Amino acid sequence: MSFKRLVRFVDENGQTLYGDFGDIVPSADVTGSMVKVLDGNLETGWRPAGRQATITKLLSPLPSPGIVLCIAMNYKDHHKVPKYPSLFCKPPDALTGPYDTISIHPETQSMLDYEGELTVVISKDAKNVQEDEALDYVLGYTSSNDISARDWQMPEEISGWQFAYAKSFDGFAPVGPCLTSTALIPDPQQLKYTTKVNGQVRQESSTKNMVFPVKQIIAHLSRGTTIRKGTFIMTGTAAGVGLFIKPEGSGFVKDGDVVEVEFEGIGSIRNKHTFE
Amino acid sequence: MSFKRLVRFVDENGQTLYGDFGDIVPSADVTGSMVKVLDGNLETGWRPAGRQATITKLLSPLPSPGIVLCIAMNYKDHHKVPKYPSLFCKPPDALTGPYDTISIHPETQSMLDYEGELTVVISKDAKNVQEDEALDYVLGYTSSNDISARDWQMPEEISGWQFAYAKSFDGFAPVGPCLTSTALIPDPQQLKYTTKVNGQVRQESSTKNMVFPVKQIIAHLSRGTTIRKGTFIMTGTAAGVGLFIKPEGSGFVKDGDVVEVEFEGIGSIRNKHTFE
Repeated sequence: MSFKRLVRFVDENGQTLYGDFGDIVPSADVTGSMVKVLDGNLETGWRPAGRQATITKLLSPLPSPGIVLCIAMNYKDHHKVPKYPSLFCKPPDALTGPYDTISIHPETQSMLDYEGELTVVISKDAKNVQEDEALDYVLGYTSSNDISARDWQMPEEISGWQFAYAKSFDGFAPVGPCLTSTALIPDPQQLKYTTKVNGQVRQESSTKNMVFPVKQIIAHLSRGTTIRKGTFIMTGTAAGVGLFIKPEGSGFVKDGDVVEVEFEGIGSIRNKHTFE
Repeated sequence: MSFKRLVRFVDENGQTLYGDFGDIVPSADVTGSMVKVLDGNLETGWRPAGRQATITKLLSPLPSPGIVLCIAMNYKDHHKVPKYPSLFCKPPDALTGPYDTISIHPETQSMLDYEGELTVVISKDAKNVQEDEALDYVLGYTSSNDISARDWQMPEEISGWQFAYAKSFDGFAPVGPCLTSTALIPDPQQLKYTTKVNGQVRQESSTKNMVFPVKQIIAHLSRGTTIRKGTFIMTGTAAGVGLFIKPEGSGFVKDGDVVEVEFEGIGSIRNKHTFE
C-alpha cells in the first residue's frame, strides 16, 4: 500500500486516477494542481506510475464500499456517553468528494447541521480484531463531515431515536481531500481539528478527546462482524455543532454556506451547501 | 425482469446460478430439487436458459448490495410507533441464505432474538419516489429474519439506543427462499406470516398490520436519497418476539434452535443457530 497521501481524481482527459501528494498537506482547494499518478487500487495496492496529471476534480479518496459505518456520541465534551461505541450507518450515495457542492433536499433544510469528524478507512477485511492489532487494519485517515438534518434526528417520536435517516441523504458524507497513511499518522489520537462555517470557527478539538479511540472502535465493530476492506468509519464529533449554538437556531447551515473541516496532516474538505 | 419466484443457488458443478420456481411456493427445504435455470442478472434482467439444474445450496435471492436498510417499530400491535418509518442498517455480511446455519459469536448469545419480517428488493435506482409510484420500484418480496442480540440493543446506555450494532453481526439477516415477483404479489399488505422456533409458533400476523406500508417506506427512504437497485429493505416485525415472552428470558433463541419465518406465497427460511 505504497502511498503517503492518497487522492482519487478526474484528470484533464476525464479519466479517474489515483495520485499521491507525498509530503504535502493540501492547504487549499487543489483543483488544477499537478499530482504524481499511482497505478493500482485497493485490491492490488498502489505503486508510482512515473508520471503526473492535473486534477480537474477531486473525488473521495476511495470509491464507496456500499456502507459507511458511523459512531455517535464519541467526544467527552458535549453529551452523555454510552458504555460502548454507538453505531449507525450511511448508504453509499452519502459519500461525496471534498469540494463537492451538496444539494440539500427541501425537506432537510430547516435544521441542517455539520459534524466535523476523523474518518478511518479499513485496509483488509477485519473480523474479531483485538485492540492491540486494530491499527494494522487501517489504510489511512481522512477529514469528513457527518452532515445531519436535525429535524429528522430528534425529537424521539420523529424517527424512533434512530440517527441513520437524518444523516443518510445523498452527499451527507463529504470526505477528503486525501487519505493520509498510517506511516504519517502512527497515533490517530493526537490530531487537532477545526470545523468552520463561512470561515468562522465552530469546532476546535483534538482526537485525544474521543471517548472510544480508533483501535477500540475497530475492535468493537469487528466483533462477530466482517468489516470489508475499503470501508469508511466516521468516528464522532466534538462540541460546537450548530444545534447547541445560542441563540437557538442561529448555528444551523443556511443556503450557500461553506462548511470546512480540517485535520492536522490531512487537509480540509470544503463544501458549499445549496438548498434545492 | 422475467421471473415468478427467483432463486439463486449453487449447482452440482459448484456454479452460482439463478433459477425460477415459477408457480411453486417452496414448502420445505428445496436443497436437492431441480429448478429451471435463468440467464441474466440484476443489470440485464433474466430470461429462461432452457435447461434445469440441481440445487446443492440455496443462496440469498440476490447478492448483497453492500447495505441492508431496515425499518424498526413498524407493527401496530406491540409498541409505540414513531411518526415516520424508523431506519437502521445492516452491513453486507449480515445477509445470508435461507437454510444457512448461523454461527453466533459468544458475546451475542445471551439475549438472542428473532424478528420475522417481509423484505422488499428494489428493482431500479430510486430517488424522490412518490407513494403512488413506489411499487413500480419493487423487484419482489422475500421472507427474512432480523436477528437481534438484545443485550447490545438495550438498555439505552449500552449502545446509545442505536439499533444497528445489535443487528449487524455476520449472518444476522437470513433471506429467501425465493424472491416472489410483484406480478404474483400485487398488494404486499395482505400477506400472512408466521415465525416458529423449533416448530412452535411465536409470531402470527399479516403485513396488513404494518404502520407504514411498503409504498410509504420506499417514498420515505428515497427522499433526497438514492436507493440503489438490488437493495434489500426489511420492513419491521410483529408482536411475539422472544424478548416479551414470559417468564422473562424464556423466549430467547438457544444453541441449536431452528428459527423459521414463512410468508404466504414466498415460502420459508429455516436457520439453525449454533453458538460458537
